[in-house]
Amino acid sequence: MAQLTYEKEITGLIVVDPYNDFISEGGKVWDRIKGVAEVNQCIPHMEQVLQAARTAGIRVFYAMHRRYRPGDYDTWKYIAPIQSSARKSKAFEYGTWGGEIRSEFQPQPGDVVTSEHWGSSGFASTDLDLQLRKRGIEKLIVIGMIAHTCVEATVRYAAELGYEVTVVKDATASYSDDHMHAALAINIPNYASAVVTADEIVEAIAGGRK
Amino acid sequence: MAQLTYEKEITGLIVVDPYNDFISEGGKVWDRIKGVAEVNQCIPHMEQVLQAARTAGIRVFYAMHRRYRPGDYDTWKYIAPIQSSARKSKAFEYGTWGGEIRSEFQPQPGDVVTSEHWGSSGFASTDLDLQLRKRGIEKLIVIGMIAHTCVEATVRYAAELGYEVTVVKDATASYSDDHMHAALAINIPNYASAVVTADEIVEAIAGGRK
Amino acid sequence: MAQLTYEKEITGLIVVDPYNDFISEGGKVWDRIKGVAEVNQCIPHMEQVLQAARTAGIRVFYAMHRRYRPGDYDTWKYIAPIQSSARKSKAFEYGTWGGEIRSEFQPQPGDVVTSEHWGSSGFASTDLDLQLRKRGIEKLIVIGMIAHTCVEATVRYAAELGYEVTVVKDATASYSDDHMHAALAINIPNYASAVVTADEIVEAIAGGRK
Amino acid sequence: MAQLTYEKEITGLIVVDPYNDFISEGGKVWDRIKGVAEVNQCIPHMEQVLQAARTAGIRVFYAMHRRYRPGDYDTWKYIAPIQSSARKSKAFEYGTWGGEIRSEFQPQPGDVVTSEHWGSSGFASTDLDLQLRKRGIEKLIVIGMIAHTCVEATVRYAAELGYEVTVVKDATASYSDDHMHAALAINIPNYASAVVTADEIVEAIAGGRK
Repeated sequence: MAQLTYEKEITGLIVVDPYNDFISEGGKVWDRIKGVAEVNQCIPHMEQVLQAARTAGIRVFYAMHRRYRPGDYDTWKYIAPIQSSARKSKAFEYGTWGGEIRSEFQPQPGDVVTSEHWGSSGFASTDLDLQLRKRGIEKLIVIGMIAHTCVEATVRYAAELGYEVTVVKDATASYSDDHMHAALAINIPNYASAVVTADEIVEAIAGGRK
Repeated sequence: MAQLTYEKEITGLIVVDPYNDFISEGGKVWDRIKGVAEVNQCIPHMEQVLQAARTAGIRVFYAMHRRYRPGDYDTWKYIAPIQSSARKSKAFEYGTWGGEIRSEFQPQPGDVVTSEHWGSSGFASTDLDLQLRKRGIEKLIVIGMIAHTCVEATVRYAAELGYEVTVVKDATASYSDDHMHAALAINIPNYASAVVTADEIVEAIAGGRK
Repeated sequence: MAQLTYEKEITGLIVVDPYNDFISEGGKVWDRIKGVAEVNQCIPHMEQVLQAARTAGIRVFYAMHRRYRPGDYDTWKYIAPIQSSARKSKAFEYGTWGGEIRSEFQPQPGDVVTSEHWGSSGFASTDLDLQLRKRGIEKLIVIGMIAHTCVEATVRYAAELGYEVTVVKDATASYSDDHMHAALAINIPNYASAVVTADEIVEAIAGGRK
Repeated sequence: MAQLTYEKEITGLIVVDPYNDFISEGGKVWDRIKGVAEVNQCIPHMEQVLQAARTAGIRVFYAMHRRYRPGDYDTWKYIAPIQSSARKSKAFEYGTWGGEIRSEFQPQPGDVVTSEHWGSSGFASTDLDLQLRKRGIEKLIVIGMIAHTCVEATVRYAAELGYEVTVVKDATASYSDDHMHAALAINIPNYASAVVTADEIVEAIAGGRK
């Protein structure tokens, strides 16, 4: 991996959409993800990175998708395909188990849960950028779901905004190896300065802690 | 294709980075693109769509990458990989032939050339969105280079901003079929309401003109 | 007033911060506002405009300030003076009466309550712009609090984004006539295409309804 | 003044619109400004602050208004009052003396001239924020024209984006004392952490240089 450093004062961990609907058995989208996620041990790796960040004193930011509420999208003139899907599936429905954060990933005091995004980028129409900047964060470590949609979108926006980005490739997942390849091998390396494993980032974070 | 309509009052054609360095024989990046571009007849298709838009009275917007100037990026703390490449290659160098728009795609009176982007999205840190909105544009047709970087980024941002987007798949190109697949088959269909051929869009535009 | 029109399909009413803390007897900031607000009958005018918009089928959008929650601002490196004040006063504290919308202004089905802003502009770091655009809104009527901070900021951002803006001068208030003059006579006329009375906008809206 | 510090690595000087049309004898708008500008010695103070910033190694950023070009605004559906004025007066016309930076304020190597803004805020639809962030700038010192329009707008946006802002009150000017009062006494103190004199900022900068 690139020899990046992760000073805790300027590094933030972005956890993208750790909803039960995405990453828990029984979630609405889990069946489409679990093939990849079980092979690369995505969920344990997400936990591992989250724990390492907390231990190192790296602040944690949650980038969360809009939880479906009745009426959402109904009066929009235009709706992107991915929003049509969300509308149809009612993924992350507000007030349901699927719209809750998986228990192992519950926000802790000091974590920042940003306002919800309506598309894929955690930055679009939210306060994520403000919350990061207000704390002097310049470097991002990104984990979560789904590699080729929200994760890639958040990475692209982060790079356009000027952040230095690292993506943890076995702490994300998608519908197939083909989707993972598109996101992690084709696109994200143009925007993320490093694409690493959970083991690698945990070691690098621990190094930065010293 | 989806039965979209393209009313001239609310539709804009976005031409992404039609620089000689990208799309002309002798351009710095052309050798990496021409394999795909010659097979799908990208350049003639771009011309065909541009001509059809002009004939139909659809306004044309140019989303242009920063033309390299001495000193660019030199005092940046962080630089994304794709920006490092641009810095190294000096692609689209200001004042050189490579940094000029290929002759067939020269802006005409009434076209809008927006301010230059520093990353991949034509919207990031530019006036593209403002110029579109000020003219009541709600629907975008996107052509140009490169499919998996600037085109995909511009499409993603457009969808996040609320535009209805159509991408012309044989009026764009990339480094390989693998790159085209990642952009056009995996990612863009989540954000673009239609991914069509040049022939299809030309027919649809002509229909909207009636 | 300028002869603007307010077609219901493209016009939105923006209600800025109708919290009890601002506009109800007993609210934390009311004592500083009520001198002006009682003279210009701000609250009845706000109700009058809101009712007229609903009757005319003009959609209503609520631009709401961050309701104070414990920990807010605590880990920010920099805080603007107006944010320091909000932190100290705990204005609009979440879960308290002061942080609730005054009863006469409760959102109705079909209204849009946007995500909360941390400064003064209803657009900054929120989904207000997205929610407006997705419904084809191009023209805004702005009422609410406080004239020289959140109202002026929201008007300035709206104009920069390309909206046509109308401000209702007796459906807003501030700390003194001097503050009202700065906002309504000096600054806002550069950005709002019309600054009108409640009676004038009600008549214009009714006209647009025909 | 507040005891702010101005470390050169994280501080930027923003020079707003130092066009001949604004600040030179014979400029299109100078007659409306010179009453205030001559009394507060605005131009010499701007020079003094610019020189002090250069000496201290504080990077200089130019936030420049769109220079008028034929066709500008002609096909916009909506135009804000301040843009109508710019269109009518052709202020800062491209290719004319009025659209050039006054000679004493010419950019030097290492300065950053950002893309042009179409309204009042130096941040709206430009790369100003990107250029600042890419260099790690967190604190801004703002000078230039005009106090209640572009300067106030740029300050408001800066605060919303998270910057710590200082305004130099005798290195800006406006149409009257009333306009200066609205900007400098009523509005800007909510967003700028300090409003100081040129002498004060020069002393503070020199202190930060040690």
